[in-house]
Amino acid sequence: MQSQKFFMATICAISTAYGAGGIAVIRVSGEQAVAIVDSLFAGRVRLCDSAANTIHFGRIQRGNEVLDEVLCSVFRAPHSFTGEDTVEIACHGSLYIQQELLRWLIDAGCKAAEPGEFTRRAFMNGKMDLTQAEAVADLIAAQSKAEKDLALSQLRGSVSNELASLRERLLHFTSLIELELDFADHEELEFADRTELSQLADEIETKLAALMASFRTGNAIRNGIPVAIIGAPNVGKSTLLNALLGEQRAIVSDIQGTTRDTIEDTLVLDGILFRLIDTAGIRDTKDTIEQLGVERSKQAAQKAQIIIFLSDNGQWTTDIVHSGTIIKVLNKSDLGVKGDGILISAKNGEIEPLKRELVRIARASLQTSAVMLSNARHYDAITRAHDAIVRVQKGMAQGLSGELLSMDLQDCLSALGEVTGQITNAEVLSNIFSKFCIGK
Amino acid sequence: MQSQKFFMATICAISTAYGAGGIAVIRVSGEQAVAIVDSLFAGRVRLCDSAANTIHFGRIQRGNEVLDEVLCSVFRAPHSFTGEDTVEIACHGSLYIQQELLRWLIDAGCKAAEPGEFTRRAFMNGKMDLTQAEAVADLIAAQSKAEKDLALSQLRGSVSNELASLRERLLHFTSLIELELDFADHEELEFADRTELSQLADEIETKLAALMASFRTGNAIRNGIPVAIIGAPNVGKSTLLNALLGEQRAIVSDIQGTTRDTIEDTLVLDGILFRLIDTAGIRDTKDTIEQLGVERSKQAAQKAQIIIFLSDNGQWTTDIVHSGTIIKVLNKSDLGVKGDGILISAKNGEIEPLKRELVRIARASLQTSAVMLSNARHYDAITRAHDAIVRVQKGMAQGLSGELLSMDLQDCLSALGEVTGQITNAEVLSNIFSKFCIGK
Repeated sequence: MQSQKFFMATICAISTAYGAGGIAVIRVSGEQAVAIVDSLFAGRVRLCDSAANTIHFGRIQRGNEVLDEVLCSVFRAPHSFTGEDTVEIACHGSLYIQQELLRWLIDAGCKAAEPGEFTRRAFMNGKMDLTQAEAVADLIAAQSKAEKDLALSQLRGSVSNELASLRERLLHFTSLIELELDFADHEELEFADRTELSQLADEIETKLAALMASFRTGNAIRNGIPVAIIGAPNVGKSTLLNALLGEQRAIVSDIQGTTRDTIEDTLVLDGILFRLIDTAGIRDTKDTIEQLGVERSKQAAQKAQIIIFLSDNGQWTTDIVHSGTIIKVLNKSDLGVKGDGILISAKNGEIEPLKRELVRIARASLQTSAVMLSNARHYDAITRAHDAIVRVQKGMAQGLSGELLSMDLQDCLSALGEVTGQITNAEVLSNIFSKFCIGK
Repeated sequence: MQSQKFFMATICAISTAYGAGGIAVIRVSGEQAVAIVDSLFAGRVRLCDSAANTIHFGRIQRGNEVLDEVLCSVFRAPHSFTGEDTVEIACHGSLYIQQELLRWLIDAGCKAAEPGEFTRRAFMNGKMDLTQAEAVADLIAAQSKAEKDLALSQLRGSVSNELASLRERLLHFTSLIELELDFADHEELEFADRTELSQLADEIETKLAALMASFRTGNAIRNGIPVAIIGAPNVGKSTLLNALLGEQRAIVSDIQGTTRDTIEDTLVLDGILFRLIDTAGIRDTKDTIEQLGVERSKQAAQKAQIIIFLSDNGQWTTDIVHSGTIIKVLNKSDLGVKGDGILISAKNGEIEPLKRELVRIARASLQTSAVMLSNARHYDAITRAHDAIVRVQKGMAQGLSGELLSMDLQDCLSALGEVTGQITNAEVLSNIFSKFCIGK
């Protein structure tokens, strides 16, 4: 875990959601946090004299002007979210008061925090590694139970712990091999036991492959399982989308070709996030715009993990290419349509059997492992680590020299270190934290 | 101050603004607050063993399921906002987590709080009187400095203190007069000194009249000073509205009669809230819709406190009825228009002189007194108290009997008591607190 020390301004930001509410919380963090808030605070005690983790009622005041009556929570380094001294000010939730308080704090010497700057400091101060910092953003964005569980598990160190011991053991072997290189004129010397190293490489390869495989599930949990609704024109695809969402999301008419753009929206069923994609009806058409729509429908089907194939006459023939699970659904049960496939009436909202089937398929595909990747950055780095360890395996099989093995081992270590942030650079960090909201 | 004791459920609500944010705060208040949160909390200490006004990190957990990592702030009765035991849970600001946490709390025995229920409890428990409780809602809704100052002063008891001593002294006299009535057969007995009573009545009448007069200002501060923009068609009224607001609020065209509905929006200049009203151009027209628009323009002018009378040729003649201050403004300086009146170019955003004039007039009219009424309910009750005390004054001048004086004194006392909530009823309370947001 990286711990750097240089001058850092005291930062402030509104940490609660934007808008007027009962209360709002402004967070102040940095060496001067307590002193700056104290300069605006009039209460029974001074905050600088108060114990860590205590709450104090008082006024925010500058000269004779009182801004608000507030509660100040005082946290002392390193026992705070950021690892720095921190004061959280709970004020009345008027937008005017929130913004004015921020202005007063800046006048008193604070800097307005950038997106993710509090979490970035937590990372810089060694309070969490990079996967945990990223989990904070995921947790805030969580829309479903599965997504929340995934982020929380990552916040609590599941990914880091999985990689930490592997990396440590690999580091040990790499050091031994590099020691051999220092004694290159004694060719017979082998500090690193090749059999043990080979076993470790196999173990690492297996674990990394499993993590890579978990990304499909993790990614589906985080971004929603893509579900395309396809079928001939006018079988009721948009009506079904609306019924599933419980709102009038797509325009519905009796006219064939009403939907042209693909329409996406998310739906949570039984704690699982689905990303529904309504498409244009697939048919031969001379309308240019509609042709584009049909093309997009086919693309959506290709990418979908589940395809709701809708029919209103018991026929499901088409030429789409796909790799997902198909659910054959027969719509318009209200008009007495019969046949195989799951029978629904999108118009009357009689779609329970379809919902159950969606959940069943999703659960079967979401074979959740203990540790799951859900972050594309992690997936990318672990793929590179896996490539490197495979090169190590091959190299050992071919009896490669320690020098060549060492390069691949270093590549693997470096890629693993990127995941947790043991190895990183300013650009990567900026890119990660710029996606955070301000105030976290 | 009223203090009632009967069984009250422990309530919970999200107290921060609606939406996803860095953090969100869920407030739990009532006898079981600490025990209920404890049943879901896993930290280093149990909340029930922790001191008042302390903060504790831990997990929200039910069986094996962890919902989030949170900070719990513990407050003990009577030293909390509501006067009851209270726990504030700061969780990650995902909407999913917020709502799920609320559900867990309800499952564990809490009741979802109604709008304003926390403040209502603060009132019921004698933590604040009714004017202070109402000030909490005003503070949360504050959009400008003047409005915030008004609400904060009321929250800190300005209105209550002003009335409290008057009411107490009046109560004393009323008791003495009622004592006289008990000795009605001794006509010569006068416990209550008539000269002193007369002086007190005069003093009360003066203060109440001053409070009533302050309502015009208080109301203007709270709801914004109404400013109507009027003038002939096509002089640039909507362009001016947009320039003042800094956005394309009203549709602008070269066609006479573009604006038909009156358009309202608020603007803060120098800490003062203005309510701008753009109107249809005033002219004789045969277009029925436009006629309605012209009618509305005239009504808007009647109600406005400031009228921006716009011209593009130096002529300002019309037949509107009004009681506000008129600002004569000459638009289209960019086209070389000249004349008396404040010269602006709405099109080019050259409107500074007009803004300065608006602020100058507003400041002059907002002759702020130490205590100001801004609440229509207070204004109504104080008007009734004032009527009653005027009847007392007249009655004493006419030498009315103690019995008749007593009735008017009681009316006055009762109306004053309504303001602070010493005298109230469930309906009035429901009406007041139903206008609060949930979570406060």
